Amino acid sequence: MEAKEVLLLLTDDWADWEASFAVSFINAEEGCVVKTIAVDEKPKVSMGGLRTEIDYTISRYTNFDNLAMVILTGGTSWRNNDYQDYPEIREFVANVRDKDIPVAAICGATSYLEKHGFTDHSQPKQVTNENGFITANGTAALEFTREILLTLKVRSDEDVEGWYNYFKNGE
Amino acid sequence: MEAKEVLLLLTDDWADWEASFAVSFINAEEGCVVKTIAVDEKPKVSMGGLRTEIDYTISRYTNFDNLAMVILTGGTSWRNNDYQDYPEIREFVANVRDKDIPVAAICGATSYLEKHGFTDHSQPKQVTNENGFITANGTAALEFTREILLTLKVRSDEDVEGWYNYFKNGE
Repeated sequence: MEAKEVLLLLTDDWADWEASFAVSFINAEEGCVVKTIAVDEKPKVSMGGLRTEIDYTISRYTNFDNLAMVILTGGTSWRNNDYQDYPEIREFVANVRDKDIPVAAICGATSYLEKHGFTDHSQPKQVTNENGFITANGTAALEFTREILLTLKVRSDEDVEGWYNYFKNGE
Repeated sequence: MEAKEVLLLLTDDWADWEASFAVSFINAEEGCVVKTIAVDEKPKVSMGGLRTEIDYTISRYTNFDNLAMVILTGGTSWRNNDYQDYPEIREFVANVRDKDIPVAAICGATSYLEKHGFTDHSQPKQVTNENGFITANGTAALEFTREILLTLKVRSDEDVEGWYNYFKNGE
Protein backbone atom coordinates (compact mmCIF):
# COMPACT_ATOMS: atom_id res chain seq x y z
CA MET A 1 0.00 0.00 0.00
CA GLU A 2 1.27 3.42 -0.89
CA ALA A 3 2.19 5.49 2.18
CA LYS A 4 -0.27 8.23 3.06
CA GLU A 5 1.17 11.68 2.47
CA VAL A 6 1.17 14.53 4.95
CA LEU A 7 2.15 17.82 3.32
CA LEU A 8 4.10 20.50 5.16
CA LEU A 9 3.45 23.81 3.45
CA LEU A 10 6.47 26.09 3.71
CA THR A 11 6.71 29.84 3.12
CA ASP A 12 9.77 32.10 3.36
CA ASP A 13 11.01 32.53 6.93
CA TRP A 14 9.04 29.56 8.20
CA ALA A 15 9.30 28.93 11.94
CA ASP A 16 11.64 26.02 12.57
CA TRP A 17 10.04 24.82 15.79
CA GLU A 18 6.32 25.05 15.17
CA ALA A 19 5.75 21.90 13.11
CA SER A 20 9.06 20.27 14.02
CA PHE A 21 7.69 17.68 16.45
CA ALA A 22 4.77 16.94 14.14
CA VAL A 23 6.83 16.16 11.04
CA SER A 24 9.42 14.06 12.88
CA PHE A 25 6.84 11.88 14.58
CA ILE A 26 4.44 11.57 11.63
CA ASN A 27 7.27 10.61 9.27
CA ALA A 28 8.45 7.94 11.74
CA GLU A 29 5.10 6.14 11.50
CA GLU A 30 4.76 3.16 9.21
CA GLY A 31 2.48 4.07 6.33
CA CYS A 32 3.00 7.84 6.60
CA VAL A 33 5.40 10.07 4.72
CA VAL A 34 5.94 13.82 5.06
CA LYS A 35 6.59 15.90 1.94
CA THR A 36 7.15 19.64 1.58
CA ILE A 37 4.99 21.80 -0.66
CA ALA A 38 5.12 25.50 -1.56
CA VAL A 39 3.86 28.05 -4.06
CA ASP A 40 7.00 27.56 -6.12
CA GLU A 41 9.93 25.18 -6.25
CA LYS A 42 12.56 27.49 -4.76
CA PRO A 43 14.02 26.27 -1.45
CA LYS A 44 12.44 28.04 1.51
CA VAL A 45 14.76 29.45 4.18
CA SER A 46 13.54 29.06 7.77
CA MET A 47 13.71 31.75 10.47
CA GLY A 48 16.73 29.79 11.71
CA GLY A 49 18.47 30.05 8.33
CA LEU A 50 17.87 26.47 7.16
CA ARG A 51 17.44 26.33 3.38
CA THR A 52 14.96 23.53 2.80
CA GLU A 53 14.08 21.99 -0.53
CA ILE A 54 10.52 21.68 -1.83
CA ASP A 55 9.05 18.36 -2.99
CA TYR A 56 5.88 19.66 -4.66
CA THR A 57 4.49 22.92 -5.94
CA ILE A 58 0.82 23.62 -5.22
CA SER A 59 -0.12 24.08 -8.87
CA ARG A 60 1.18 20.64 -9.83
CA TYR A 61 -0.06 18.61 -6.85
CA THR A 62 -2.51 15.88 -7.82
CA ASN A 63 -2.14 13.10 -5.25
CA PHE A 64 -5.25 13.99 -3.24
CA ASP A 65 -6.55 10.42 -3.05
CA ASN A 66 -3.52 9.60 -0.97
CA LEU A 67 -3.36 12.79 1.09
CA ALA A 68 -3.98 12.47 4.84
CA MET A 69 -3.41 16.07 6.02
CA VAL A 70 -1.93 19.44 5.10
CA ILE A 71 0.07 21.33 7.73
CA LEU A 72 0.59 25.09 7.34
CA THR A 73 3.45 26.13 9.54
CA GLY A 74 3.94 29.64 10.88
CA GLY A 75 6.67 32.12 10.07
CA THR A 76 7.21 35.83 9.69
CA SER A 77 6.25 36.08 6.01
CA TRP A 78 2.54 35.53 6.76
CA ARG A 79 2.53 38.71 8.84
CA ASN A 80 4.97 40.63 6.66
CA ASN A 81 2.57 40.50 3.74
CA ASP A 82 -0.41 41.17 6.03
CA TYR A 83 -1.71 37.65 5.35
CA GLN A 84 -2.94 38.84 1.94
CA ASP A 85 -0.60 37.22 -0.51
CA TYR A 86 -0.52 33.62 -1.54
CA PRO A 87 -3.88 33.32 -3.34
CA GLU A 88 -2.69 29.88 -4.48
CA ILE A 89 -2.63 28.78 -0.85
CA ARG A 90 -6.21 29.96 -0.29
CA GLU A 91 -7.40 27.95 -3.29
CA PHE A 92 -5.37 24.93 -2.23
CA VAL A 93 -6.81 24.97 1.30
CA ALA A 94 -10.34 25.27 -0.10
CA ASN A 95 -9.70 22.36 -2.44
CA VAL A 96 -8.26 20.19 0.35
CA ARG A 97 -11.22 20.91 2.65
CA ASP A 98 -13.69 20.20 -0.20
CA LYS A 99 -12.22 16.71 -0.24
CA ASP A 100 -12.74 16.51 3.54
CA ILE A 101 -9.00 16.27 4.23
CA PRO A 102 -7.98 17.97 7.52
CA VAL A 103 -5.83 21.10 7.56
CA ALA A 104 -3.60 22.00 10.51
CA ALA A 105 -2.21 25.52 10.97
CA ILE A 106 -0.09 27.17 13.61
CA CYS A 107 0.77 30.73 14.58
CA GLY A 108 0.89 33.11 11.58
CA ALA A 109 -0.82 30.54 9.37
CA THR A 110 -3.92 30.60 11.63
CA SER A 111 -4.23 34.36 10.99
CA TYR A 112 -4.07 33.63 7.27
CA LEU A 113 -6.94 31.12 7.61
CA GLU A 114 -9.01 33.63 9.56
CA LYS A 115 -8.35 36.46 7.08
CA HIS A 116 -9.59 34.24 4.28
CA GLY A 117 -12.72 33.13 6.11
CA PHE A 118 -11.77 29.52 6.78
CA THR A 119 -11.99 29.95 10.55
CA ASP A 120 -13.38 32.58 12.89
CA HIS A 121 -10.28 32.83 15.07
CA SER A 122 -6.53 33.20 14.99
CA GLN A 123 -4.15 32.21 17.77
CA PRO A 124 -6.55 30.14 19.85
CA LYS A 125 -5.51 29.36 23.39
CA GLN A 126 -3.02 26.56 22.68
CA VAL A 127 -5.04 24.39 20.29
CA THR A 128 -8.52 23.89 18.83
CA ASN A 129 -9.91 21.31 16.41
CA GLU A 130 -13.13 22.34 14.68
CA ASN A 131 -14.68 21.72 11.28
CA GLY A 132 -11.61 20.00 9.91
CA PHE A 133 -9.17 22.70 10.97
CA ILE A 134 -6.62 22.14 13.72
CA THR A 135 -5.27 25.54 14.85
CA ALA A 136 -2.66 26.35 17.47
CA ASN A 137 -0.55 29.22 18.66
CA GLY A 138 3.21 29.35 18.31
CA THR A 139 3.93 28.33 21.90
CA ALA A 140 1.89 25.13 21.48
CA ALA A 141 4.05 23.02 19.19
CA LEU A 142 3.54 19.97 21.44
CA GLU A 143 -0.23 20.43 21.81
CA PHE A 144 -0.47 20.96 18.04
CA THR A 145 1.38 17.69 17.44
CA ARG A 146 -0.80 15.80 19.93
CA GLU A 147 -3.95 16.94 18.13
CA ILE A 148 -2.46 16.06 14.72
CA LEU A 149 -1.44 12.56 15.86
CA LEU A 150 -4.89 11.96 17.39
CA THR A 151 -6.55 13.09 14.16
CA LEU A 152 -4.34 10.96 11.92
CA LYS A 153 -4.97 7.93 14.19
CA VAL A 154 -1.49 6.58 13.53
CA ARG A 155 -1.06 5.63 17.21
CA SER A 156 -3.48 4.76 19.96
CA ASP A 157 -4.83 7.71 21.96
CA GLU A 158 -3.01 6.35 25.00
CA ASP A 159 0.31 6.26 23.15
CA VAL A 160 -0.20 9.83 22.00
CA GLU A 161 -0.86 10.98 25.57
CA GLY A 162 2.27 9.20 26.75
CA TRP A 163 4.29 10.82 23.97
CA TYR A 164 2.92 14.25 24.89
CA ASN A 165 3.62 13.91 28.60
CA TYR A 166 7.15 12.71 27.93
CA PHE A 167 8.01 15.73 25.81
CA LYS A 168 6.05 18.24 27.90
CA ASN A 169 7.53 17.26 31.24
CA GLY A 170 10.92 15.91 30.22
CA GLU A 171 12.74 12.76 31.08
CA MET B 1 30.97 44.38 12.03
CA GLU B 2 30.63 40.94 10.54
CA ALA B 3 27.85 38.90 12.17
CA LYS B 4 29.02 36.17 14.52
CA GLU B 5 28.37 32.71 13.14
CA VAL B 6 26.65 29.88 14.97
CA LEU B 7 27.04 26.58 13.15
CA LEU B 8 24.34 23.92 13.18
CA LEU B 9 25.98 20.59 12.41
CA LEU B 10 23.57 18.28 10.56
CA THR B 11 23.80 14.54 10.01
CA ASP B 12 21.40 12.27 8.11
CA ASP B 13 18.06 11.88 9.87
CA TRP B 14 18.62 14.87 12.10
CA ALA B 15 15.87 15.53 14.65
CA ASP B 16 13.73 18.45 13.45
CA TRP B 17 12.70 19.70 16.87
CA GLU B 18 15.82 19.47 18.98
CA ALA B 19 17.68 22.60 17.85
CA SER B 20 14.64 24.22 16.21
CA PHE B 21 13.98 26.84 18.89
CA ALA B 22 17.69 27.57 19.21
CA VAL B 23 18.33 28.30 15.53
CA SER B 24 15.19 30.43 15.06
CA PHE B 25 15.92 32.64 18.04
CA ILE B 26 19.68 32.92 17.54
CA ASN B 27 19.25 33.85 13.88
CA ALA B 28 16.71 36.54 14.84
CA GLU B 29 19.33 38.34 16.94
CA GLU B 30 21.16 41.31 15.48
CA GLY B 31 24.80 40.36 14.96
CA CYS B 32 24.23 36.59 14.83
CA VAL B 33 23.75 34.33 11.85
CA VAL B 34 23.11 30.58 11.76
CA LYS B 35 24.77 28.46 9.08
CA THR B 36 24.59 24.72 8.47
CA ILE B 37 27.69 22.53 8.34
CA ALA B 38 28.18 18.82 7.65
CA VAL B 39 30.80 16.27 6.72
CA ASP B 40 29.94 16.72 3.06
CA GLU B 41 27.93 19.10 0.93
CA LYS B 42 24.99 16.77 0.23
CA PRO B 43 21.63 18.03 1.62
CA LYS B 44 20.74 16.30 4.88
CA VAL B 45 17.22 14.92 5.25
CA SER B 46 15.64 15.35 8.68
CA MET B 47 13.65 12.69 10.56
CA GLY B 48 10.61 14.64 9.37
CA GLY B 49 11.67 14.33 5.73
CA LEU B 50 12.93 17.92 5.25
CA ARG B 51 15.84 18.01 2.80
CA THR B 52 18.05 20.82 4.03
CA GLU B 53 20.99 22.32 2.21
CA ILE B 54 24.45 22.64 3.69
CA ASP B 55 26.34 25.95 3.83
CA TYR B 56 29.79 24.63 4.81
CA THR B 57 31.67 21.37 4.87
CA ILE B 58 33.83 20.68 7.90
CA SER B 59 37.01 20.18 5.92
CA ARG B 60 36.75 23.60 4.30
CA TYR B 61 35.62 25.68 7.28
CA THR B 62 38.09 28.40 8.23
CA ASN B 63 36.07 31.22 9.81
CA PHE B 64 36.95 30.35 13.40
CA ASP B 65 37.77 33.95 14.40
CA ASN B 66 34.15 34.78 13.83
CA LEU B 67 32.61 31.60 15.26
CA ALA B 68 30.47 31.96 18.41
CA MET B 69 29.24 28.38 18.90
CA VAL B 70 28.77 24.99 17.26
CA ILE B 71 25.49 23.13 17.82
CA LEU B 72 25.37 19.36 17.23
CA THR B 73 21.77 18.34 16.88
CA GLY B 74 20.48 14.83 17.55
CA GLY B 75 19.03 12.33 15.14
CA THR B 76 18.89 8.62 14.52
CA SER B 77 22.11 8.34 12.50
CA TRP B 78 24.31 8.90 15.58
CA ARG B 79 22.87 5.75 17.16
CA ASN B 80 22.57 3.80 13.92
CA ASN B 81 26.32 3.89 13.43
CA ASP B 82 26.92 3.24 17.15
CA TYR B 83 28.35 6.78 17.51
CA GLN B 84 31.55 5.55 15.89
CA ASP B 85 31.55 7.15 12.49
CA TYR B 86 32.21 10.73 11.63
CA PRO B 87 35.93 11.01 12.61
CA GLU B 88 35.85 14.45 10.94
CA ILE B 89 33.30 15.59 13.51
CA ARG B 90 35.52 14.43 16.39
CA GLU B 91 38.46 16.40 15.01
CA PHE B 92 36.28 19.43 14.35
CA VAL B 93 34.89 19.44 17.90
CA ALA B 94 38.43 19.14 19.32
CA ASN B 95 39.58 22.03 17.14
CA VAL B 96 36.64 24.22 18.17
CA ARG B 97 37.19 23.53 21.87
CA ASP B 98 40.96 24.21 21.48
CA LYS B 99 39.94 27.70 20.41
CA ASP B 100 37.72 27.94 23.52
CA ILE B 101 34.52 28.18 21.44
CA PRO B 102 31.52 26.52 23.15
CA VAL B 103 29.92 23.37 21.73
CA ALA B 104 26.26 22.51 22.36
CA ALA B 105 24.92 18.98 21.80
CA ILE B 106 21.55 17.36 22.27
CA CYS B 107 20.25 13.79 22.43
CA GLY B 108 22.21 11.40 20.18
CA ALA B 109 24.98 13.94 19.73
CA THR B 110 25.68 13.91 23.50
CA SER B 111 26.33 10.16 23.28
CA TYR B 112 28.78 10.84 20.47
CA LEU B 113 30.64 13.35 22.66
CA GLU B 114 30.79 10.88 25.52
CA LYS B 115 32.00 8.02 23.29
CA HIS B 116 34.83 10.21 22.09
CA GLY B 117 35.87 11.37 25.57
CA PHE B 118 34.73 14.98 25.36
CA THR B 119 32.30 14.59 28.25
CA ASP B 120 31.70 12.01 30.96
CA HIS B 121 27.95 11.76 30.43
CA SER B 122 25.28 11.37 27.80
CA GLN B 123 21.64 12.38 28.15
CA PRO B 124 21.94 14.46 31.30
CA LYS B 125 18.73 15.28 33.13
CA GLN B 126 17.46 18.07 30.87
CA VAL B 127 20.58 20.22 30.51
CA THR B 128 24.11 20.73 31.82
CA ASN B 129 26.79 23.28 30.97
CA GLU B 130 30.33 22.23 31.94
CA ASN B 131 33.78 22.84 30.53
CA GLY B 132 32.51 24.53 27.40
CA PHE B 133 29.99 21.83 26.54
CA ILE B 134 26.25 22.41 26.78
CA THR B 135 24.48 19.02 26.70
CA ALA B 136 20.78 18.23 26.84
CA ASN B 137 18.40 15.37 26.29
CA GLY B 138 15.93 15.21 23.45
CA THR B 139 12.94 16.28 25.56
CA ALA B 140 14.73 19.47 26.62
CA ALA B 141 14.73 21.56 23.45
CA LEU B 142 13.58 24.64 25.40
CA GLU B 143 16.05 24.20 28.25
CA PHE B 144 18.81 23.62 25.67
CA THR B 145 17.91 26.88 23.93
CA ARG B 146 17.79 28.81 27.21
CA GLU B 147 21.30 27.65 28.08
CA ILE B 148 22.58 28.49 24.58
CA LEU B 149 21.07 32.00 24.67
CA LEU B 150 22.53 32.62 28.14
CA THR B 151 25.95 31.46 26.94
CA LEU B 152 25.89 33.56 23.77
CA LYS B 153 24.82 36.60 25.83
CA VAL B 154 22.75 37.94 22.93
CA ARG B 155 19.92 38.94 25.31
CA SER B 156 19.81 39.87 28.98
CA ASP B 157 19.40 36.95 31.38
CA GLU B 158 15.99 38.34 32.34
CA ASP B 159 14.83 38.38 28.70
CA VAL B 160 15.98 34.81 28.26
CA GLU B 161 14.00 33.70 31.34
CA GLY B 162 10.93 35.49 30.01
CA TRP B 163 11.35 33.82 26.63
CA TYR B 164 11.69 30.40 28.27
CA ASN B 165 8.64 30.79 30.49
CA TYR B 166 6.53 31.95 27.56
CA PHE B 167 7.35 28.91 25.47
CA LYS B 168 7.34 26.44 28.36
CA ASN B 169 3.99 27.46 29.78
CA GLY B 170 2.21 28.74 26.69
CA GLU B 171 0.30 31.86 25.92
